[in-house]
Amino acid sequence: MISPGELIQLVSPQGKKYLMTVEAGKELHTHHGKIDISEVLEKDFGDEIKTHLGKVYHILKPTLYDLIKNIERKTQIIYPKDIGYILVRLGVGPGSKVVEAGCGSGSLTMSFAYMVGETGKVYSFDRREEFVSLCKKNLTKAGLESRVVLEVRDISEGFGFKSMDCGFLDVREPWLYVEQLAEVVKNGSVVGFLLPTTNQVTKLLEALEKGPFIDIDVVEIMLRRYKPIYERFRPDDRMVAHTGFLIFARIKNK
Amino acid sequence: MISPGELIQLVSPQGKKYLMTVEAGKELHTHHGKIDISEVLEKDFGDEIKTHLGKVYHILKPTLYDLIKNIERKTQIIYPKDIGYILVRLGVGPGSKVVEAGCGSGSLTMSFAYMVGETGKVYSFDRREEFVSLCKKNLTKAGLESRVVLEVRDISEGFGFKSMDCGFLDVREPWLYVEQLAEVVKNGSVVGFLLPTTNQVTKLLEALEKGPFIDIDVVEIMLRRYKPIYERFRPDDRMVAHTGFLIFARIKNK
Amino acid sequence: MISPGELIQLVSPQGKKYLMTVEAGKELHTHHGKIDISEVLEKDFGDEIKTHLGKVYHILKPTLYDLIKNIERKTQIIYPKDIGYILVRLGVGPGSKVVEAGCGSGSLTMSFAYMVGETGKVYSFDRREEFVSLCKKNLTKAGLESRVVLEVRDISEGFGFKSMDCGFLDVREPWLYVEQLAEVVKNGSVVGFLLPTTNQVTKLLEALEKGPFIDIDVVEIMLRRYKPIYERFRPDDRMVAHTGFLIFARIKNK
Amino acid sequence: MISPGELIQLVSPQGKKYLMTVEAGKELHTHHGKIDISEVLEKDFGDEIKTHLGKVYHILKPTLYDLIKNIERKTQIIYPKDIGYILVRLGVGPGSKVVEAGCGSGSLTMSFAYMVGETGKVYSFDRREEFVSLCKKNLTKAGLESRVVLEVRDISEGFGFKSMDCGFLDVREPWLYVEQLAEVVKNGSVVGFLLPTTNQVTKLLEALEKGPFIDIDVVEIMLRRYKPIYERFRPDDRMVAHTGFLIFARIKNK
Repeated sequence: MISPGELIQLVSPQGKKYLMTVEAGKELHTHHGKIDISEVLEKDFGDEIKTHLGKVYHILKPTLYDLIKNIERKTQIIYPKDIGYILVRLGVGPGSKVVEAGCGSGSLTMSFAYMVGETGKVYSFDRREEFVSLCKKNLTKAGLESRVVLEVRDISEGFGFKSMDCGFLDVREPWLYVEQLAEVVKNGSVVGFLLPTTNQVTKLLEALEKGPFIDIDVVEIMLRRYKPIYERFRPDDRMVAHTGFLIFARIKNK
Repeated sequence: MISPGELIQLVSPQGKKYLMTVEAGKELHTHHGKIDISEVLEKDFGDEIKTHLGKVYHILKPTLYDLIKNIERKTQIIYPKDIGYILVRLGVGPGSKVVEAGCGSGSLTMSFAYMVGETGKVYSFDRREEFVSLCKKNLTKAGLESRVVLEVRDISEGFGFKSMDCGFLDVREPWLYVEQLAEVVKNGSVVGFLLPTTNQVTKLLEALEKGPFIDIDVVEIMLRRYKPIYERFRPDDRMVAHTGFLIFARIKNK
Repeated sequence: MISPGELIQLVSPQGKKYLMTVEAGKELHTHHGKIDISEVLEKDFGDEIKTHLGKVYHILKPTLYDLIKNIERKTQIIYPKDIGYILVRLGVGPGSKVVEAGCGSGSLTMSFAYMVGETGKVYSFDRREEFVSLCKKNLTKAGLESRVVLEVRDISEGFGFKSMDCGFLDVREPWLYVEQLAEVVKNGSVVGFLLPTTNQVTKLLEALEKGPFIDIDVVEIMLRRYKPIYERFRPDDRMVAHTGFLIFARIKNK
Repeated sequence: MISPGELIQLVSPQGKKYLMTVEAGKELHTHHGKIDISEVLEKDFGDEIKTHLGKVYHILKPTLYDLIKNIERKTQIIYPKDIGYILVRLGVGPGSKVVEAGCGSGSLTMSFAYMVGETGKVYSFDRREEFVSLCKKNLTKAGLESRVVLEVRDISEGFGFKSMDCGFLDVREPWLYVEQLAEVVKNGSVVGFLLPTTNQVTKLLEALEKGPFIDIDVVEIMLRRYKPIYERFRPDDRMVAHTGFLIFARIKNK
């Protein structure tokens, strides 16, 4: 049975998804009619629920993927294909202490928060007030805000703390902050960067080569989606061709 | 300071990596000479350590990526690029209860174990004794064996338990087990599959279409690596072109 | 100096292209004003020409690529990326005798006609009257109709002639016609096929394996376009992800 | 019937290919035994021929693809996937006059020569004597040398002639020669470039932007090969991931 306050998503017959927390008395207005959210409290994940016009919706438990897809965004978000790889490369998991600058709309922040669990912590910064607000809003909606320290801060002066397990920069000129990033994480940790243009990547590589970094690696993750029709199986006609280059490096002893 | 029993990796000047647990009195024999592992106990992650011939190695903390790369394998392992995406799609995180069949060498099993933390659990099965042994060995080496229930079992009779948060099949004929998989996970959860050929994918899609599944999705994750040289930045000449198709679906109410 | 009857294209300041033959007295109406086509006769390729409102257009010589891009289409056309590779694989060149079924809108027919020159010949068929008409219209616009024999014909009865240098089928069920195709081309020639789905490819491969074919090869050509901006060089955000699988085989002695 | 002097290729049971011209009295020594090439004169393309040990080889007519694959090389050659696209973009066909610098081993030179026919001409240059010799050798072996003017020349002084239909540079620093290239081709023609690194591409784009060029376009052609097995259809495990970026531009009036 689903509890009050729990995060759910309702899926329309056409696959449109609505993310929300369950509260007695709440109503969802869809173009198939109203759904009385109180009814969710008598049901389980996977069950059906009907609009007042009799249309069937499904009640699903949101995964990390769903949370990312539902983010309210003002910028290009970081995609699940890139997030999954970042998590594995940085070694983020239960208990990790992660630092990040350039939170943007918060898709990566939320993913870090999801994975570090109750025992870990995410420290996230952005110079722009509006993004810190938006990120906070998205974290709150997903019930993950308590795991994140989120502040408006320019990191050029350094982070002011130490011993993070890993770090990530999604900022326009990361080569300006590689020293600060190397300071805030433990020796031997992995740090990552996301950059859209090759010009930025080459500038960053030059900075990394001069700093205390080893194991420098640049990759691009491409996702190709297929039409899931068994009699006519084939790739989709169009795809997202580029979201950014991912750069990883390891801090050697400082 | 690094503690006895902790998992470390030593990296040679050429980047060759040695994964091991720290024990006083242990020695590592490299082609640059011997390393006295006791010395690691006076050091931190990111520090240098020297062979008896004076060659410098680095001491690094293994990330999930490192653990996967260091797996002893008898089969093609599941790659980090695919693992990251699977974790995000299935919503695996601290506390998750995950079921898997076809553990193979254990790269995905280990990743699930890494992410579910102390509060979660992974149930993993394989029909082949040798893979269960190998997977156990790899989990033990990584210190993650306590989070996994691992057994030789043919899942055609069903799993014999229920209410998993998500599930994954890496077996040759998954269409034979989709009913069993739908039974073992909660309503509304996501299940995934990895398959190398299009013939297998179409057979699976046909089975999913007939069963209690919605949100069926087929993707392929491609990783393109670049030469990290700032004056001559370009993609690598060759790449891994195919590891498998990833198929995801959601269980609707049973 | 450009001659009357010559094929030109006019390019707007925004890059919009108009393909046409030059005739005295002709006018082009653009949203930048009228262009008097007679003026083209005093100019050369690469020159500018002005609309009556003073906007500058360029006069360019159409390449094969331009001809393909300007085709009037009722179906998905075959793309330049695939056409180039087909030409090289089939060995189409000056003097080639090429046979084709499934002309569609005619992008491949036109390319064959372009490459075989005055000394070669293209034999092209389609069951559907409307496509034969459309293909003829496109060939005529490009001035290439004299190199092509184009007919409404069902090829299931065979082609009725022999000794072609190579052949190509762009039809829905090519496995029904592989024997006919093997008959119409010379021993040792290369034949090709374009198919969108993996189900079709596997059916075709099965048929080819049973027939007089060797050197069977399946490829996919992907084109990734980049933003041509030197300060911010990066791949385009989106791309055409799939146009079709190309299958090639060689006829062994019959 | 195959004539003396004609270009053929013999294919072993394992698919190994031998390209040669037919001459009475010639012998081919294979690891399956000797083949008497005189016997080819009684046969047709697609026929079988036996070694003195009774092993069956096939006699095939070489396509442009075969010629490229058989090139004797000292450098990375330009691949068929790139060549096909270059031909279509430049509009090379029967009668074209094409200029090229950086002939290398000659795979593109040979392709231009193949497509321009008896009525066209290719002008090809390289600063390095050894590549001009190698290219000449490859052209002669393919019987295409009469269509090519091939010289050791540094193009920094200009080409010394004019009115080419299109041009291509495969040199390390093409930005040094864009003015010379714009001079040697007709107004409105397309020129192309192949470059391996993004650093080179951005330098070239900067030079093109300052010169008499429009319609600047950068693409990359990727070829994904599949295992042609109908019961287990899937992409190959590995692929060539990068051969180079192709840059195209059009000359506006000079």
